[in-house]
Parts: sequence; C-alpha cells; structure tokens
Amino acid sequence: MSVQKAAVVGTGVIGTGWIVRMLANGYDVVATDPAEGAEEHMRRAVEQAWPYAEQLGLAEGASKGRLTFEKELAEAVKDADIIQENVPEVEELKQTVLQNIDRHAKPDAIIGSSTSGIMPSELQANLQHPERFVVAHPFHPVYILPLVEVVPGEQTTTENTEKAKAFYEAIQMRVLLVRHEIEGHIADRLIEAIWRESLHIVNEGIATTEEVDKAFTHGAGMRYAQYGPFLTFHLAGGEGGMRHMLKQFGPALKKPWTKLEAPELTDELYDKVVSGCEEQSNGMSMSELDAHRNEFLVKLYDLVQEYWPKETEKTRV
Amino acid sequence: MSVQKAAVVGTGVIGTGWIVRMLANGYDVVATDPAEGAEEHMRRAVEQAWPYAEQLGLAEGASKGRLTFEKELAEAVKDADIIQENVPEVEELKQTVLQNIDRHAKPDAIIGSSTSGIMPSELQANLQHPERFVVAHPFHPVYILPLVEVVPGEQTTTENTEKAKAFYEAIQMRVLLVRHEIEGHIADRLIEAIWRESLHIVNEGIATTEEVDKAFTHGAGMRYAQYGPFLTFHLAGGEGGMRHMLKQFGPALKKPWTKLEAPELTDELYDKVVSGCEEQSNGMSMSELDAHRNEFLVKLYDLVQEYWPKETEKTRV
Repeated sequence: MSVQKAAVVGTGVIGTGWIVRMLANGYDVVATDPAEGAEEHMRRAVEQAWPYAEQLGLAEGASKGRLTFEKELAEAVKDADIIQENVPEVEELKQTVLQNIDRHAKPDAIIGSSTSGIMPSELQANLQHPERFVVAHPFHPVYILPLVEVVPGEQTTTENTEKAKAFYEAIQMRVLLVRHEIEGHIADRLIEAIWRESLHIVNEGIATTEEVDKAFTHGAGMRYAQYGPFLTFHLAGGEGGMRHMLKQFGPALKKPWTKLEAPELTDELYDKVVSGCEEQSNGMSMSELDAHRNEFLVKLYDLVQEYWPKETEKTRV
Repeated sequence: MSVQKAAVVGTGVIGTGWIVRMLANGYDVVATDPAEGAEEHMRRAVEQAWPYAEQLGLAEGASKGRLTFEKELAEAVKDADIIQENVPEVEELKQTVLQNIDRHAKPDAIIGSSTSGIMPSELQANLQHPERFVVAHPFHPVYILPLVEVVPGEQTTTENTEKAKAFYEAIQMRVLLVRHEIEGHIADRLIEAIWRESLHIVNEGIATTEEVDKAFTHGAGMRYAQYGPFLTFHLAGGEGGMRHMLKQFGPALKKPWTKLEAPELTDELYDKVVSGCEEQSNGMSMSELDAHRNEFLVKLYDLVQEYWPKETEKTRV
C-alpha cells in the first residue's frame, strides 16, 4: 500500500501543522473536528502557514485545494490510508476518538497519534485493529520542524511500523524510531527537564522568564540547533572528547546544579556514553567536528542576530 | 578606568576561547599557564580559531601579534586591567589561583572567574580585594557564542560589576547579569537538567546517545536557537499563549515525563510565568511572534540541513 489520502482528526495547532505538511508534500487531506467554527479556523491557520511551506518547497501537484473538511469523523476517515489523531492530551478522550477512528477506517489504514506523552500500548489496547497503530509525535511548527518520534506499541506489527515510517519520510520528516516505550517518549523528556528546571528558577525568584530564556538562547541554544547534548559535551572535552569531559564534569552530577536527580556514573554508563559519541562522530576527528561546528555557528550567528527577540529594559545593578 | 590590557590565567579550551575573543576585539592579552607545552598548545588553538573570529569581524587594530605568554602568573597579571581565570573546576585550586592573582594584580583590576558552578561569594571570601571579583561564565566556543553570565558576590561593589559588564560588552558579548547566586548560575542548571535526563535515558537502555541527540536537534533544538523555554511554550499555546499552554500541559508536571521533580504550579508561579512571557514579547502579538519564528526557522532549516551530523547506520525495525 502506498498512501494516497490522509485524514487529520483534530485541527488545533498540531493538527493544522500536519495538514500543511501533508498538503505541501502533495497529498489529499480530509480533516475533521467537532468544534464550533473548526473549519474556518483551520482554513485560516493553513493560509497563515502556507507561505513558509512554499519557501521550504512544495511537491509537484501540491495544493491547498486538495484539503476538504468533513464534520463527521466516520466520513472523514473512511477512505484514508493514514489517519493522524491530534485531539487534546487527555487519555480517556484519546481512547474514545481512537476507537471511533479504528471502527470506521479501512482495516489496513495506519493510525498515528500525535500524543506527547502517552504510551502506544495503552492507546492501542482497546482497538479492533491495534496492529496498525503507532505514536507519531511531531514538533511545533509541524510544517517546518522535521522531527517525528515513531513509537510502535506491543501489538504494532513490524510491517506497519515500516509503513508508517515510510509515510512520514515521504512527507520530508526525520523519523526517530523509539525502540522502547516510555512516558514522554524521548524528546519531551528532555524538553520537560528544561521546563521544570526553568520553572524552579522562576519560582525561587532567581531570575525572570526573560532572563532564563536569554541564558539559553545566546549560548547553549545555538549549539543545540546542530548537535545534541552528547555531541556538544563530546566537543567541549577538547581533544579528549567525552572521555575527558566525564572526568572534568562527571563530579558535577553529585552537585545541586539542578533539581534533577542524576544517575550513578557507573563504568557501564561511562562506556555507553563514550563509545556512543565516538560512533556517532562517524569517523570525523575532534578537530574536524570542531571546524564543522564553528562553520555552522558563524553562519547561525549572523542569522540569529536578526531574529533574537528584542530585549526589554533591564534592571540595572 | 577603561580596559587596555587583559590577562588570561589557564589556557585550556575556555582560556584560549577568551584569548581569541579578546584579541579579535582589539585588546592586548597576556596569557599564563603552568602546564608543560602550554604556550605551544595555546598558540595552535588560537591559530585554529582565528579564521572564525575573522569571519565574525575583527576590531580595528586587532591582531594575534598582541598576544604574549608569561610563564609566571605574577608577571602575567601585574599590569592587566582585567584578569580572566580559567583553571580546572576544582574549588581549592580556584581559591589558590585567585588568591595569587589578587596578590599580584593592580588593586583595582577586575578579576573574572569562568567557573561553571561555584558561587562568587565563596571564591572571593579569601581575597584581599574581594570587591573587584565577579564570576563571568562564558560558553564554548567562547569566541563565537556571545553569552556571558556575570554574577557578583556579596562583597562585589556595584561599580565593579558595572565595570566588568562594560568590558564584556566591549568584547561583543551578551551579558546576563545573574542577580542571585546559585550553584550552576542559570544556564548550566538548564544544561545540567538536559544532561542528567539524557544520561538516564541512555543508562536505562531506552535510546543510544545518537538517538537522544537526534531527538533534540531535529526538533526542539532548532527552536532554542531563537527562543528559550518560556517563549517557546508561549508560542506553542496558539492564540492563548502561555495561559493556554499551562492549562494544556500544566498537568504533565505531575507525570513521570522526566526524572526531575517539578515545582507546584501555584497561582503565584502561574502569574509570574504568564506575565513574564507577555512582557518579554515586547508588544508583539501572538501572530507576529509566530511569523517571526517561522521566518527564522525556514532560514535556519536550510542551514542545518547542510550542517547536521550525518546519521550512522540505523537499527532497522
């Protein structure tokens, strides 16, 4: 089966993001949402996002005209090859809507849920055809950011996971296959860690929301657009890479540098982290990685200068 | 006093980063480090970094030729107007070196420490002239990333904090004045939160280091180059901004989405976060913020496509 027609259930910020990405990649999309004024709201959101999709490049034949809205969920999903569910993050509601989708969709249609945190085995437990269900968790704005976490549940077949993966790749996404179910999948666990620490800092009166944001964007945030937490620290270790880094900053795991409890830095964890970084360097030497990062950051620096938010008046000392 | 001459104590990754930034901004720099081969290592590091400093733009008269190396700390610091300390992150060592600097420097020279996590009041406690000491914590690579956290201690005078701030601004940095001392200052608390959660994920066998990195860079990491954790969530809330966001994802604070304990979302914290986000939006409407972010991300997307690390062979499902 190759996907001809997609359905989007729930047309909030995430749902409309999916719609734009699917349309821009040349698919027919049927959308549904029971809310008052949903169609109008959806069409306005699609209009607003479309210029950015155009700048990124439209597939041949891609058109906003290939979007239809159906008031009835049963009608919306019945011919779709893939159905993307984006209702609010309330487990009971998601269960009910997914059962409805499952009942009215073709038995071999893929069902993907955009859930931020709920595990797929829970969401598929009461479906008639659980084997075609995956979590497919995107990031806002969905029509620009390429990451999607695809998480199969216990009952999902390998074949269907592959089908889902192929579809998300076809709409220009970077698929991260999450091999083990966990609440918050992977990315949101990192985001939630930053979020909780940020809230603690504001809660304790250490800094304002603006100061916290600035502490991130003008430093580490720039690095994270290119390299994640591991490769960033691998590079901060100089020629010794992660090996040196863990010697230098491993002890900080014992300190109250965040409210977060750290794991014990066992030999096994040490080996996993060091060999992981060496492997993902893909044969690039430390100085090649270093130059690669610098070239990127210099270009990024020009760009962010123009796009960082303007600072509000600061409290002077 | 305006700074004419800078001294850099400790010439590892951070120390050489400062040297390049200071030279590129037209200062005379004297460096010192007791390690075997330190001068040669330093000069090589400066050579490697220089082309990026050039691309960002050199100040008039800026030259690598204005760097000298002194084996003796006393000699290196004696004429300097600002002295930047970058020895390893071991408190006793920093205390000893800072006392040496304090003894040999001019009494009104500013002393800045690059410490990642130690509080300034502790580091200045045993100085003869503690009033001119600040923490000035930069981010790697120091010659590109603009953030510096300036943290005065209990004994630092307002005048000296202002002098330090003016110097770091003169070398093209974005100064975040940290008004309350806390271990890890602000930025490293966020970085440490990500780092600890990342280690837990690898430790529990959920994902590899490469998968964790990808979960970050292809999604949230791109956003964080422009907006920090607060403005990002403000935008994710759609037209309702942070107000809606806290309603939607506030309950996730109670869930095990990270190993990090969350603060209680009290009315007071709610108000601080919502009004903070509204204030830092600087009068931009949600749709203006949204468009501003999209314009940035579309340009960033072209850039990162070229600079993201190549993926290693993936385990297929």
